[in-house]
Amino acid sequence: MSPPEGGNPFDLNETIHQRSRLGIMTVLREAGEADFAFLKENLDLTDGNLGRHLEVLAAAGYVSTRRGYDGRRSRTWVRLTPQGSTALQIEIEALRTIINRADETS
Amino acid sequence: MSPPEGGNPFDLNETIHQRSRLGIMTVLREAGEADFAFLKENLDLTDGNLGRHLEVLAAAGYVSTRRGYDGRRSRTWVRLTPQGSTALQIEIEALRTIINRADETS
Repeated sequence: MSPPEGGNPFDLNETIHQRSRLGIMTVLREAGEADFAFLKENLDLTDGNLGRHLEVLAAAGYVSTRRGYDGRRSRTWVRLTPQGSTALQIEIEALRTIINRADETS
Repeated sequence: MSPPEGGNPFDLNETIHQRSRLGIMTVLREAGEADFAFLKENLDLTDGNLGRHLEVLAAAGYVSTRRGYDGRRSRTWVRLTPQGSTALQIEIEALRTIINRADETS
């Protein structure tokens, strides 16, 4: 996980916090494993954008990918790693803190 | 408010979602009005970073600033606009949706 940086009093993890990547991680947590086409459609991302975000997440060790075949069609499957699952949980708790603070002042 | 863009199935508002700006908006909602020095210290931001994020938020119509004096010292006060307050609430609800989805699969 990235070390805390300035401007981050809420322990938000910039790698995951970015909204498309937060969407990808959330969908993967629900789906267990999802293929590229499913993520693309569910998250309304282009091939290029999804590929780039998955590279960032894989470089951080948060997702792993495997290639498989569906008949003759090549497919790429993606899942959260244990490290990714933990990092997502920490981000979720940070978001919960923000929401609770907002609820207290609404 | 910015229109929804691709890669944003959760209606996250990129202007606010960026983690330093989410922190600024959350603190302003609590504080009502805060001066530059208070925000800087609370959010662990440099002058340059805080100034840049406030410019982004002001350009979106989410915060307003006023100059005042504390003795002979010039101070800049910042507060949420009604539009900023509404946008923050929408972002908070989007975050709540993500957390609820995560909680359901944990």
